[in-house]
Amino acid sequence: MNKIACVNGQFLPESEASISIFDRGFLFADGIYEAISVVDGLMLDVEPHMARLERSLNEVAMTSPYSREQIIAMLRELVQQNQFREGLLYFQITRGAAPRTFQFPSSEVKATFIAFTMPMPLMERPEIEHGVKIISLPEQRWKRRDIKSVGMLAQCLGKQAAVEQGCHEAIRSEDDGTITDGTSSSFDIVKEKTLIPRPLSSSILPGVTRRAVLALAKQNEIQVEERNFTLEEARGADEACLTAASNFVMPVVQIDEHTLGTGKPGPVGCKLRAIDIEEALGSAR
Amino acid sequence: MNKIACVNGQFLPESEASISIFDRGFLFADGIYEAISVVDGLMLDVEPHMARLERSLNEVAMTSPYSREQIIAMLRELVQQNQFREGLLYFQITRGAAPRTFQFPSSEVKATFIAFTMPMPLMERPEIEHGVKIISLPEQRWKRRDIKSVGMLAQCLGKQAAVEQGCHEAIRSEDDGTITDGTSSSFDIVKEKTLIPRPLSSSILPGVTRRAVLALAKQNEIQVEERNFTLEEARGADEACLTAASNFVMPVVQIDEHTLGTGKPGPVGCKLRAIDIEEALGSAR
Repeated sequence: MNKIACVNGQFLPESEASISIFDRGFLFADGIYEAISVVDGLMLDVEPHMARLERSLNEVAMTSPYSREQIIAMLRELVQQNQFREGLLYFQITRGAAPRTFQFPSSEVKATFIAFTMPMPLMERPEIEHGVKIISLPEQRWKRRDIKSVGMLAQCLGKQAAVEQGCHEAIRSEDDGTITDGTSSSFDIVKEKTLIPRPLSSSILPGVTRRAVLALAKQNEIQVEERNFTLEEARGADEACLTAASNFVMPVVQIDEHTLGTGKPGPVGCKLRAIDIEEALGSAR
Repeated sequence: MNKIACVNGQFLPESEASISIFDRGFLFADGIYEAISVVDGLMLDVEPHMARLERSLNEVAMTSPYSREQIIAMLRELVQQNQFREGLLYFQITRGAAPRTFQFPSSEVKATFIAFTMPMPLMERPEIEHGVKIISLPEQRWKRRDIKSVGMLAQCLGKQAAVEQGCHEAIRSEDDGTITDGTSSSFDIVKEKTLIPRPLSSSILPGVTRRAVLALAKQNEIQVEERNFTLEEARGADEACLTAASNFVMPVVQIDEHTLGTGKPGPVGCKLRAIDIEEALGSAR
Protein backbone atom coordinates (compact mmCIF):
# COMPACT_ATOMS: atom_id res chain seq x y z
CA MET A 1 0.00 0.00 0.00
CA ASN A 2 2.67 2.47 -1.11
CA LYS A 3 1.05 3.76 -4.29
CA ILE A 4 -1.31 6.65 -5.00
CA ALA A 5 -5.04 6.38 -4.35
CA CYS A 6 -7.88 8.71 -5.27
CA VAL A 7 -10.36 9.98 -2.66
CA ASN A 8 -13.07 12.34 -3.89
CA GLY A 9 -10.90 13.60 -6.73
CA GLN A 10 -7.76 14.05 -4.61
CA PHE A 11 -4.70 11.97 -5.42
CA LEU A 12 -2.71 11.05 -2.34
CA PRO A 13 -0.51 8.26 -0.91
CA GLU A 14 -2.48 5.11 -0.09
CA SER A 15 -1.22 5.32 3.50
CA GLU A 16 -3.02 8.67 3.85
CA ALA A 17 -6.14 7.74 1.90
CA SER A 18 -8.95 7.76 4.44
CA ILE A 19 -12.67 8.31 4.85
CA SER A 20 -14.82 9.38 7.78
CA ILE A 21 -15.92 6.72 10.26
CA PHE A 22 -19.41 8.09 9.50
CA ASP A 23 -19.17 7.06 5.87
CA ARG A 24 -22.19 4.92 5.06
CA GLY A 25 -19.94 2.53 3.18
CA PHE A 26 -18.26 1.75 6.50
CA LEU A 27 -21.37 1.74 8.74
CA PHE A 28 -23.93 0.07 6.44
CA ALA A 29 -22.18 -1.33 3.34
CA ASP A 30 -24.22 1.37 1.60
CA GLY A 31 -21.87 1.40 -1.39
CA ILE A 32 -21.33 0.09 -4.91
CA TYR A 33 -18.05 -0.90 -6.55
CA GLU A 34 -16.39 -2.03 -9.75
CA ALA A 35 -13.00 -3.52 -10.60
CA ILE A 36 -11.55 -3.12 -14.09
CA SER A 37 -8.69 -5.22 -15.45
CA VAL A 38 -5.59 -3.43 -16.63
CA VAL A 39 -3.13 -5.17 -18.94
CA ASP A 40 -0.13 -3.42 -20.52
CA GLY A 41 -1.43 -0.24 -18.88
CA LEU A 42 -4.70 -0.54 -20.83
CA MET A 43 -8.10 -0.51 -19.11
CA LEU A 44 -10.22 -3.39 -20.40
CA ASP A 45 -14.01 -3.46 -20.90
CA VAL A 46 -14.48 0.07 -19.56
CA GLU A 47 -17.92 0.58 -21.08
CA PRO A 48 -19.66 -2.48 -19.59
CA HIS A 49 -18.10 -1.84 -16.18
CA MET A 50 -19.33 1.76 -16.19
CA ALA A 51 -22.76 0.65 -17.39
CA ARG A 52 -22.97 -1.91 -14.57
CA LEU A 53 -21.84 0.69 -12.03
CA GLU A 54 -24.60 3.02 -13.17
CA ARG A 55 -27.15 0.21 -13.06
CA SER A 56 -26.14 -0.79 -9.51
CA LEU A 57 -26.28 2.83 -8.33
CA ASN A 58 -29.70 3.22 -9.88
CA GLU A 59 -31.02 0.06 -8.20
CA VAL A 60 -30.18 1.48 -4.77
CA ALA A 61 -31.17 5.08 -5.60
CA MET A 62 -27.63 6.38 -5.18
CA THR A 63 -26.30 9.30 -7.18
CA SER A 64 -22.75 9.29 -8.47
CA PRO A 65 -20.77 12.34 -7.38
CA TYR A 66 -19.04 12.35 -10.78
CA SER A 67 -20.01 11.80 -14.40
CA ARG A 68 -18.89 8.70 -16.24
CA GLU A 69 -16.29 10.78 -18.08
CA GLN A 70 -14.96 12.27 -14.83
CA ILE A 71 -14.63 8.81 -13.28
CA ILE A 72 -12.79 7.45 -16.31
CA ALA A 73 -10.48 10.47 -16.25
CA MET A 74 -9.65 9.87 -12.57
CA LEU A 75 -9.01 6.17 -13.27
CA ARG A 76 -6.69 7.06 -16.14
CA GLU A 77 -4.86 9.54 -13.93
CA LEU A 78 -4.42 6.80 -11.31
CA VAL A 79 -3.02 4.38 -13.90
CA GLN A 80 -0.59 7.05 -14.99
CA GLN A 81 0.49 8.22 -11.55
CA ASN A 82 1.09 4.63 -10.40
CA GLN A 83 2.67 3.62 -13.72
CA PHE A 84 0.19 0.81 -13.44
CA ARG A 85 0.75 -2.00 -15.94
CA GLU A 86 -1.23 -5.04 -14.84
CA GLY A 87 -3.86 -5.85 -12.25
CA LEU A 88 -7.20 -4.47 -11.11
CA LEU A 89 -8.35 -0.89 -10.91
CA TYR A 90 -10.80 -0.75 -8.02
CA PHE A 91 -13.33 2.02 -7.47
CA GLN A 92 -16.22 2.49 -5.07
CA ILE A 93 -19.03 4.96 -4.52
CA THR A 94 -20.90 5.20 -1.21
CA ARG A 95 -23.83 7.29 -0.04
CA GLY A 96 -21.40 9.54 1.84
CA ALA A 97 -20.68 10.49 5.45
CA ALA A 98 -23.64 11.57 7.55
CA PRO A 99 -25.06 11.13 11.05
CA ARG A 100 -25.97 7.45 11.30
CA THR A 101 -29.56 6.64 10.25
CA PHE A 102 -30.79 3.58 8.35
CA GLN A 103 -32.82 5.75 5.98
CA PHE A 104 -30.93 7.75 3.37
CA PRO A 105 -29.26 10.95 4.56
CA SER A 106 -30.22 14.44 3.41
CA SER A 107 -29.79 14.94 -0.32
CA GLU A 108 -27.13 17.53 0.51
CA VAL A 109 -24.77 14.78 1.68
CA LYS A 110 -22.26 14.19 -1.08
CA ALA A 111 -21.47 10.64 -2.13
CA THR A 112 -17.94 9.34 -1.55
CA PHE A 113 -15.72 8.19 -4.42
CA ILE A 114 -12.51 6.26 -3.88
CA ALA A 115 -10.22 4.38 -6.27
CA PHE A 116 -6.95 2.49 -6.05
CA THR A 117 -4.81 0.10 -8.06
CA MET A 118 -4.24 -3.56 -7.20
CA PRO A 119 -1.16 -4.89 -8.97
CA MET A 120 -1.46 -8.60 -9.71
CA PRO A 121 -0.60 -10.90 -12.59
CA LEU A 122 -3.61 -11.41 -14.88
CA MET A 123 -1.94 -12.90 -17.97
CA GLU A 124 0.68 -15.25 -16.60
CA ARG A 125 -1.22 -17.43 -14.17
CA PRO A 126 0.38 -20.72 -13.15
CA GLU A 127 -3.08 -22.09 -12.27
CA ILE A 128 -4.05 -22.14 -15.94
CA GLU A 129 -1.87 -25.12 -16.76
CA HIS A 130 -3.53 -27.48 -14.29
CA GLY A 131 -6.87 -25.73 -13.69
CA VAL A 132 -8.24 -24.95 -10.24
CA LYS A 133 -10.16 -26.77 -7.55
CA ILE A 134 -13.24 -25.21 -6.02
CA ILE A 135 -15.68 -25.98 -3.22
CA SER A 136 -19.44 -25.63 -3.00
CA LEU A 137 -21.26 -23.98 -0.12
CA PRO A 138 -24.92 -23.24 0.61
CA GLU A 139 -26.12 -19.88 -0.75
CA GLN A 140 -26.16 -17.35 2.10
CA ARG A 141 -26.01 -13.98 0.39
CA TRP A 142 -28.79 -11.43 0.14
CA LYS A 143 -31.28 -11.76 -2.68
CA ARG A 144 -30.10 -8.83 -4.82
CA ARG A 145 -26.85 -10.34 -6.05
CA ASP A 146 -27.34 -8.47 -9.32
CA ILE A 147 -26.31 -5.31 -7.44
CA LYS A 148 -22.53 -5.05 -7.07
CA SER A 149 -22.62 -3.80 -3.48
CA VAL A 150 -19.77 -3.87 -0.97
CA GLY A 151 -21.86 -5.95 1.46
CA MET A 152 -19.72 -9.02 1.02
CA LEU A 153 -19.11 -10.64 4.38
CA ALA A 154 -20.68 -13.86 3.07
CA GLN A 155 -18.31 -13.73 0.11
CA CYS A 156 -15.30 -13.21 2.39
CA LEU A 157 -16.35 -16.16 4.56
CA GLY A 158 -16.85 -18.30 1.45
CA LYS A 159 -13.48 -17.43 -0.08
CA GLN A 160 -11.76 -18.00 3.25
CA ALA A 161 -13.37 -21.46 3.51
CA ALA A 162 -12.12 -22.24 -0.02
CA VAL A 163 -8.58 -21.05 0.73
CA GLU A 164 -8.48 -23.06 3.96
CA GLN A 165 -9.26 -26.15 1.88
CA GLY A 166 -6.52 -25.34 -0.63
CA CYS A 167 -9.08 -24.26 -3.22
CA HIS A 168 -9.35 -21.27 -5.53
CA GLU A 169 -12.99 -20.33 -5.12
CA ALA A 170 -16.33 -21.28 -3.56
CA ILE A 171 -19.53 -21.56 -5.59
CA ARG A 172 -22.96 -21.39 -3.99
CA SER A 173 -25.95 -23.67 -4.31
CA GLU A 174 -29.49 -22.55 -3.52
CA ASP A 175 -31.96 -24.59 -1.47
CA ASP A 176 -33.29 -26.04 -4.75
CA GLY A 177 -29.82 -27.38 -5.60
CA THR A 178 -29.10 -24.93 -8.42
CA ILE A 179 -25.75 -23.18 -8.58
CA THR A 180 -25.71 -19.37 -8.50
CA ASP A 181 -22.15 -18.07 -8.85
CA GLY A 182 -18.82 -17.85 -7.05
CA THR A 183 -17.73 -15.44 -4.32
CA SER A 184 -15.92 -13.27 -6.88
CA SER A 185 -16.54 -15.03 -10.20
CA SER A 186 -19.33 -16.19 -12.46
CA PHE A 187 -19.48 -19.94 -13.02
CA ASP A 188 -20.34 -21.92 -16.16
CA ILE A 189 -20.28 -25.62 -16.95
CA VAL A 190 -19.63 -27.39 -20.26
CA LYS A 191 -21.45 -30.56 -21.31
CA GLU A 192 -20.91 -32.18 -24.68
CA LYS A 193 -19.14 -29.04 -25.95
CA THR A 194 -22.11 -26.83 -24.94
CA LEU A 195 -21.41 -23.91 -22.60
CA ILE A 196 -24.09 -23.73 -19.89
CA PRO A 197 -24.33 -20.47 -17.91
CA ARG A 198 -27.08 -19.65 -15.41
CA PRO A 199 -29.38 -16.99 -16.93
CA LEU A 200 -29.21 -13.47 -15.51
CA SER A 201 -31.61 -12.66 -12.67
CA SER A 202 -31.37 -11.10 -9.22
CA SER A 203 -29.71 -14.37 -8.11
CA ILE A 204 -26.36 -13.68 -9.77
CA LEU A 205 -24.09 -10.81 -10.66
CA PRO A 206 -24.26 -9.80 -14.34
CA GLY A 207 -20.57 -10.56 -14.88
CA VAL A 208 -18.79 -8.41 -17.47
CA THR A 209 -16.47 -11.29 -18.39
CA ARG A 210 -19.45 -13.68 -18.33
CA ARG A 211 -21.20 -11.54 -20.92
CA ALA A 212 -18.13 -11.19 -23.12
CA VAL A 213 -17.48 -14.93 -23.03
CA LEU A 214 -21.07 -15.75 -24.00
CA ALA A 215 -20.92 -13.42 -26.97
CA LEU A 216 -17.54 -14.77 -28.05
CA ALA A 217 -18.71 -18.37 -27.69
CA LYS A 218 -21.62 -17.68 -30.02
CA GLN A 219 -19.36 -15.91 -32.53
CA ASN A 220 -16.99 -18.89 -32.45
CA GLU A 221 -19.68 -21.47 -32.98
CA ILE A 222 -19.62 -22.83 -29.47
CA GLN A 223 -23.16 -23.80 -28.50
CA VAL A 224 -24.52 -21.81 -25.54
CA GLU A 225 -27.49 -22.94 -23.47
CA GLU A 226 -28.44 -20.44 -20.79
CA ARG A 227 -30.29 -22.36 -18.07
CA ASN A 228 -30.17 -23.23 -14.40
CA PHE A 229 -28.09 -26.26 -13.45
CA THR A 230 -27.60 -28.11 -10.19
CA LEU A 231 -24.52 -28.86 -8.13
CA GLU A 232 -24.94 -32.52 -9.02
CA GLU A 233 -24.95 -31.66 -12.72
CA ALA A 234 -21.89 -29.43 -12.30
CA ARG A 235 -19.98 -32.20 -10.56
CA GLY A 236 -20.74 -34.47 -13.49
CA ALA A 237 -19.90 -31.89 -16.18
CA ASP A 238 -17.15 -32.37 -18.78
CA GLU A 239 -15.65 -28.98 -17.97
CA ALA A 240 -16.38 -25.93 -15.87
CA CYS A 241 -14.93 -22.45 -15.66
CA LEU A 242 -14.93 -19.37 -13.52
CA THR A 243 -15.10 -16.01 -15.24
CA ALA A 244 -14.10 -12.71 -13.64
CA ALA A 245 -12.25 -9.53 -14.55
CA SER A 246 -9.36 -10.76 -12.42
CA ASN A 247 -9.36 -14.24 -13.99
CA PHE A 248 -10.62 -13.95 -17.55
CA VAL A 249 -11.71 -17.60 -18.01
CA MET A 250 -10.29 -19.93 -15.37
CA PRO A 251 -10.71 -23.68 -15.98
CA VAL A 252 -12.07 -25.68 -13.04
CA VAL A 253 -10.96 -29.31 -12.73
CA GLN A 254 -12.46 -30.31 -9.39
CA ILE A 255 -15.60 -29.42 -7.40
CA ASP A 256 -15.46 -30.61 -3.80
CA GLU A 257 -14.20 -34.20 -4.14
CA HIS A 258 -15.44 -34.62 -7.71
CA THR A 259 -12.98 -34.51 -10.60
CA LEU A 260 -14.37 -33.05 -13.82
CA GLY A 261 -13.78 -34.82 -17.13
CA THR A 262 -10.14 -35.84 -17.51
CA GLY A 263 -9.09 -33.74 -14.51
CA LYS A 264 -7.30 -31.32 -16.83
CA PRO A 265 -8.43 -27.97 -18.30
CA GLY A 266 -10.86 -28.79 -21.10
CA PRO A 267 -10.78 -27.63 -24.72
CA VAL A 268 -13.83 -25.34 -24.54
CA GLY A 269 -12.58 -23.46 -21.47
CA CYS A 270 -9.08 -23.10 -22.90
CA LYS A 271 -10.40 -21.84 -26.22
CA LEU A 272 -12.71 -19.34 -24.51
CA ARG A 273 -9.84 -18.07 -22.37
CA ALA A 274 -7.69 -17.45 -25.40
CA ILE A 275 -10.35 -15.65 -27.43
CA ASP A 276 -11.57 -13.62 -24.44
CA ILE A 277 -8.07 -12.32 -23.73
CA GLU A 278 -7.47 -11.60 -27.40
CA GLU A 279 -10.76 -9.74 -27.74
CA ALA A 280 -10.37 -7.73 -24.51
CA LEU A 281 -6.84 -6.62 -25.41
CA GLY A 282 -7.79 -5.95 -29.01
CA SER A 283 -10.68 -3.70 -27.99
CA ALA A 284 -8.58 -1.76 -25.49
CA ARG A 285 -5.80 -0.95 -27.98
CA MET B 1 -20.94 15.56 14.19
CA ASN B 2 -19.14 17.90 16.58
CA LYS B 3 -18.51 15.55 19.48
CA ILE B 4 -15.62 13.24 20.35
CA ALA B 5 -15.28 9.81 18.74
CA CYS B 6 -12.92 6.95 19.53
CA VAL B 7 -10.77 5.33 16.83
CA ASN B 8 -8.48 2.51 17.95
CA GLY B 9 -8.22 3.90 21.46
CA GLN B 10 -7.64 7.49 20.39
CA PHE B 11 -10.21 10.13 21.33
CA LEU B 12 -10.57 12.84 18.72
CA PRO B 13 -13.14 15.18 17.17
CA GLU B 14 -15.74 13.36 15.07
CA SER B 15 -14.80 15.54 12.09
CA GLU B 16 -11.27 14.09 12.23
CA ALA B 17 -12.28 10.50 13.01
CA SER B 18 -11.30 8.49 9.98
CA ILE B 19 -10.22 5.06 8.82
CA SER B 20 -8.22 3.82 5.85
CA ILE B 21 -10.03 3.32 2.54
CA PHE B 22 -8.49 -0.18 2.76
CA ASP B 23 -10.41 -0.97 5.93
CA ARG B 24 -12.31 -4.22 5.34
CA GLY B 25 -15.35 -2.68 7.01
CA PHE B 26 -15.47 -0.20 4.12
CA LEU B 27 -14.55 -2.59 1.28
CA PHE B 28 -16.42 -5.75 2.33
CA ALA B 29 -18.73 -4.98 5.27
CA ASP B 30 -16.33 -7.27 7.12
CA GLY B 31 -17.33 -5.83 10.49
CA ILE B 32 -19.53 -6.32 13.55
CA TYR B 33 -21.27 -3.66 15.61
CA GLU B 34 -23.36 -2.97 18.69
CA ALA B 35 -25.40 -0.03 19.92
CA ILE B 36 -26.05 0.45 23.64
CA SER B 37 -28.76 2.73 25.04
CA VAL B 38 -27.69 5.49 27.39
CA VAL B 39 -30.23 7.15 29.67
CA ASP B 40 -29.29 9.68 32.36
CA GLY B 41 -25.68 9.04 31.36
CA LEU B 42 -26.06 5.35 32.28
CA MET B 43 -25.19 2.55 29.86
CA LEU B 44 -28.04 0.02 29.76
CA ASP B 45 -27.78 -3.76 29.27
CA VAL B 46 -24.01 -3.68 28.85
CA GLU B 47 -23.48 -7.37 29.57
CA PRO B 48 -25.85 -8.79 26.92
CA HIS B 49 -24.58 -6.33 24.30
CA MET B 50 -20.97 -7.34 24.99
CA ALA B 51 -21.92 -11.03 24.96
CA ARG B 52 -23.66 -10.59 21.59
CA LEU B 53 -20.66 -8.69 20.20
CA GLU B 54 -18.37 -11.54 21.21
CA ARG B 55 -20.74 -14.11 19.72
CA SER B 56 -20.94 -12.22 16.40
CA LEU B 57 -17.14 -11.86 16.24
CA ASN B 58 -16.76 -15.56 16.94
CA GLU B 59 -19.22 -16.52 14.19
CA VAL B 60 -17.10 -14.71 11.59
CA ALA B 61 -13.73 -15.73 13.10
CA MET B 62 -12.80 -12.14 13.94
CA THR B 63 -10.64 -11.25 16.92
CA SER B 64 -11.42 -8.18 18.98
CA PRO B 65 -8.44 -5.84 19.29
CA TYR B 66 -9.48 -5.11 22.90
CA SER B 67 -10.78 -7.04 25.88
CA ARG B 68 -14.36 -6.60 27.01
CA GLU B 69 -13.12 -4.48 29.93
CA GLN B 70 -11.04 -2.27 27.65
CA ILE B 71 -14.02 -1.69 25.34
CA ILE B 72 -16.30 -0.82 28.24
CA ALA B 73 -13.65 1.57 29.60
CA MET B 74 -13.42 3.34 26.20
CA LEU B 75 -17.21 3.58 26.01
CA ARG B 76 -17.36 5.09 29.50
CA GLU B 77 -14.63 7.55 28.56
CA LEU B 78 -16.66 8.56 25.48
CA VAL B 79 -19.81 9.08 27.60
CA GLN B 80 -17.80 11.27 29.94
CA GLN B 81 -15.94 13.29 27.31
CA ASN B 82 -19.19 13.99 25.42
CA GLN B 83 -21.17 14.57 28.61
CA PHE B 84 -23.50 12.11 26.98
CA ARG B 85 -26.89 11.83 28.71
CA GLU B 86 -29.31 10.08 26.36
CA GLY B 87 -29.13 8.21 23.07
CA LEU B 88 -27.12 5.38 21.57
CA LEU B 89 -23.50 4.51 22.08
CA TYR B 90 -22.35 2.92 18.81
CA PHE B 91 -19.25 0.78 18.42
CA GLN B 92 -17.88 -1.34 15.60
CA ILE B 93 -15.03 -3.77 15.06
CA THR B 94 -13.74 -4.64 11.59
CA ARG B 95 -11.09 -7.05 10.34
CA GLY B 96 -8.77 -4.08 9.80
CA ALA B 97 -7.05 -2.38 6.88
CA ALA B 98 -5.13 -4.60 4.47
CA PRO B 99 -4.50 -5.05 0.75
CA ARG B 100 -7.89 -6.04 -0.68
CA THR B 101 -8.50 -9.82 -0.83
CA PHE B 102 -11.75 -11.66 -0.19
CA GLN B 103 -10.03 -14.14 2.09
CA PHE B 104 -8.97 -12.94 5.53
CA PRO B 105 -5.80 -10.85 5.70
CA SER B 106 -2.60 -11.91 7.47
CA SER B 107 -3.11 -12.49 11.19
CA GLU B 108 -0.73 -9.57 11.78
CA VAL B 109 -3.35 -7.12 10.53
CA LYS B 110 -4.91 -5.45 13.56
CA ALA B 111 -8.68 -5.19 13.77
CA THR B 112 -10.19 -1.69 13.76
CA PHE B 113 -12.28 -0.39 16.67
CA ILE B 114 -14.38 2.75 16.45
CA ALA B 115 -17.06 4.21 18.72
CA PHE B 116 -19.20 7.31 18.81
CA THR B 117 -22.26 8.72 20.56
CA MET B 118 -25.64 9.32 18.91
CA PRO B 119 -27.71 11.75 20.97
CA MET B 120 -31.44 11.08 20.58
CA PRO B 121 -34.46 11.01 22.85
CA LEU B 122 -35.16 7.49 24.10
CA MET B 123 -37.56 8.18 26.98
CA GLU B 124 -39.79 10.97 25.70
CA ARG B 125 -41.04 9.69 22.38
CA PRO B 126 -44.14 11.34 20.93
CA GLU B 127 -44.85 8.18 18.88
CA ILE B 128 -45.68 6.26 22.06
CA GLU B 129 -49.01 7.98 22.55
CA HIS B 130 -50.47 6.93 19.20
CA GLY B 131 -48.26 3.97 18.30
CA VAL B 132 -46.47 3.60 14.96
CA LYS B 133 -47.33 2.40 11.49
CA ILE B 134 -45.07 -0.08 9.72
CA ILE B 135 -44.84 -1.69 6.31
CA SER B 136 -44.00 -5.24 5.27
CA LEU B 137 -41.48 -6.14 2.59
CA PRO B 138 -40.17 -9.42 1.20
CA GLU B 139 -37.13 -10.77 3.08
CA GLN B 140 -33.99 -9.91 1.10
CA ARG B 141 -31.19 -10.07 3.65
CA TRP B 142 -28.46 -12.68 3.89
CA LYS B 143 -29.18 -15.87 5.79
CA ARG B 144 -27.06 -15.16 8.88
CA ARG B 145 -29.18 -12.43 10.42
CA ASP B 146 -28.13 -13.69 13.84
CA ILE B 147 -24.75 -12.05 13.20
CA LYS B 148 -24.86 -8.30 13.85
CA SER B 149 -22.76 -7.36 10.84
CA VAL B 150 -22.54 -3.95 9.19
CA GLY B 151 -23.67 -5.42 5.84
CA MET B 152 -27.00 -3.62 5.96
CA LEU B 153 -27.79 -2.20 2.54
CA ALA B 154 -31.04 -4.23 2.51
CA GLN B 155 -31.93 -2.73 5.90
CA CYS B 156 -31.21 0.79 4.64
CA LEU B 157 -33.39 0.23 1.58
CA GLY B 158 -36.16 -1.19 3.77
CA LYS B 159 -36.10 1.67 6.25
CA GLN B 160 -36.02 4.20 3.42
CA ALA B 161 -39.10 2.56 1.85
CA ALA B 162 -40.87 2.78 5.23
CA VAL B 163 -39.95 6.43 5.73
CA GLU B 164 -41.10 7.30 2.21
CA GLN B 165 -44.50 5.85 3.12
CA GLY B 166 -44.66 7.84 6.35
CA CYS B 167 -43.97 4.72 8.41
CA HIS B 168 -41.63 3.99 11.29
CA GLU B 169 -40.19 0.65 10.27
CA ALA B 170 -40.32 -2.19 7.74
CA ILE B 171 -40.73 -5.82 8.77
CA ARG B 172 -39.75 -8.69 6.48
CA SER B 173 -41.67 -11.76 5.42
CA GLU B 174 -39.99 -14.90 4.12
CA ASP B 175 -41.13 -16.81 1.05
CA ASP B 176 -43.19 -19.05 3.37
CA GLY B 177 -45.08 -16.01 4.65
CA THR B 178 -43.53 -15.96 8.13
CA ILE B 179 -42.27 -12.69 9.58
CA THR B 180 -38.61 -12.44 10.54
CA ASP B 181 -37.86 -9.05 12.09
CA GLY B 182 -37.60 -5.35 11.32
CA THR B 183 -34.74 -3.46 9.69
CA SER B 184 -33.50 -2.29 13.10
CA SER B 185 -35.93 -3.87 15.56
CA SER B 186 -37.29 -7.22 16.67
CA PHE B 187 -41.03 -7.70 16.14
CA ASP B 188 -43.60 -9.47 18.32
CA ILE B 189 -47.36 -9.81 18.06
CA VAL B 190 -49.98 -10.16 20.81
CA LYS B 191 -53.06 -12.35 20.49
CA GLU B 192 -55.53 -12.82 23.33
CA LYS B 193 -53.02 -11.30 25.79
CA THR B 194 -50.31 -13.76 24.70
CA LEU B 195 -46.99 -12.33 23.50
CA ILE B 196 -45.82 -14.18 20.37
CA PRO B 197 -42.16 -13.71 19.34
CA ARG B 198 -40.44 -15.65 16.58
CA PRO B 199 -37.98 -18.14 18.13
CA LEU B 200 -34.26 -17.43 17.80
CA SER B 201 -32.49 -18.92 14.78
CA SER B 202 -30.16 -17.68 12.05
CA SER B 203 -33.22 -15.94 10.54
CA ILE B 204 -33.37 -13.14 13.11
CA LEU B 205 -31.09 -11.05 15.27
CA PRO B 206 -31.05 -12.16 18.91
CA GLY B 207 -32.33 -8.81 20.15
CA VAL B 208 -31.14 -7.68 23.55
CA THR B 209 -34.39 -5.83 24.20
CA ARG B 210 -36.33 -8.79 22.77
CA ARG B 211 -34.71 -11.08 25.34
CA ALA B 212 -35.28 -8.69 28.23
CA VAL B 213 -38.93 -8.23 27.29
CA LEU B 214 -39.53 -11.97 27.08
CA ALA B 215 -38.05 -12.52 30.52
CA LEU B 216 -40.02 -9.62 31.98
CA ALA B 217 -43.24 -10.83 30.39
CA LYS B 218 -42.82 -14.22 32.03
CA GLN B 219 -42.03 -12.60 35.41
CA ASN B 220 -45.14 -10.47 35.10
CA GLU B 221 -47.46 -13.31 34.25
CA ILE B 222 -47.89 -12.40 30.62
CA GLN B 223 -48.16 -15.60 28.58
CA VAL B 224 -45.34 -16.03 26.04
CA GLU B 225 -45.56 -18.38 23.08
CA GLU B 226 -42.36 -18.44 21.01
CA ARG B 227 -43.32 -19.58 17.52
CA ASN B 228 -43.26 -18.52 13.90
CA PHE B 229 -46.17 -16.41 12.70
CA THR B 230 -47.20 -15.15 9.29
CA LEU B 231 -47.76 -11.67 7.92
CA GLU B 232 -51.46 -12.49 7.66
CA GLU B 233 -51.55 -13.45 11.32
CA ALA B 234 -49.67 -10.29 12.30
CA ARG B 235 -52.13 -8.11 10.39
CA GLY B 236 -54.96 -9.74 12.33
CA ALA B 237 -53.24 -9.54 15.73
CA ASP B 238 -54.68 -7.61 18.70
CA GLU B 239 -51.39 -5.77 19.22
CA ALA B 240 -47.85 -5.77 17.92
CA CYS B 241 -44.63 -4.17 19.03
CA LEU B 242 -41.13 -3.44 17.87
CA THR B 243 -38.31 -3.89 20.34
CA ALA B 244 -34.87 -2.33 20.01
CA ALA B 245 -32.24 -0.64 22.16
CA SER B 246 -33.25 2.64 20.55
CA ASN B 247 -36.99 2.06 21.07
CA PHE B 248 -37.43 -0.10 24.16
CA VAL B 249 -40.92 -1.44 23.34
CA MET B 250 -42.68 0.52 20.58
CA PRO B 251 -46.38 -0.24 20.04
CA VAL B 252 -47.42 -0.86 16.42
CA VAL B 253 -50.96 0.12 15.42
CA GLN B 254 -50.92 -0.47 11.68
CA ILE B 255 -49.19 -2.92 9.29
CA ASP B 256 -49.45 -1.88 5.65
CA GLU B 257 -53.14 -0.92 5.30
CA HIS B 258 -54.28 -3.11 8.21
CA THR B 259 -55.19 -1.50 11.53
CA LEU B 260 -54.42 -3.65 14.59
CA GLY B 261 -57.04 -4.05 17.32
CA THR B 262 -58.52 -0.71 18.30
CA GLY B 263 -55.89 1.23 16.34
CA LYS B 264 -54.34 2.44 19.60
CA PRO B 265 -51.36 1.11 21.58
CA GLY B 266 -52.56 -2.01 23.37
CA PRO B 267 -52.35 -2.85 27.07
CA VAL B 268 -49.75 -5.63 26.78
CA GLY B 269 -47.33 -3.50 24.74
CA CYS B 270 -47.74 -0.51 27.04
CA LYS B 271 -47.19 -2.61 30.14
CA LEU B 272 -44.09 -4.25 28.66
CA ARG B 273 -42.68 -0.86 27.72
CA ALA B 274 -43.10 0.45 31.25
CA ILE B 275 -41.55 -2.58 32.97
CA ASP B 276 -38.72 -2.84 30.42
CA ILE B 277 -37.68 0.77 30.98
CA GLU B 278 -37.99 0.41 34.74
CA GLU B 279 -35.91 -2.77 34.75
CA ALA B 280 -33.21 -1.42 32.37
CA LEU B 281 -32.78 1.78 34.36
CA GLY B 282 -32.94 -0.04 37.67
CA SER B 283 -30.17 -2.47 36.63
CA ALA B 284 -27.92 0.32 35.35
CA ARG B 285 -28.06 2.39 38.56
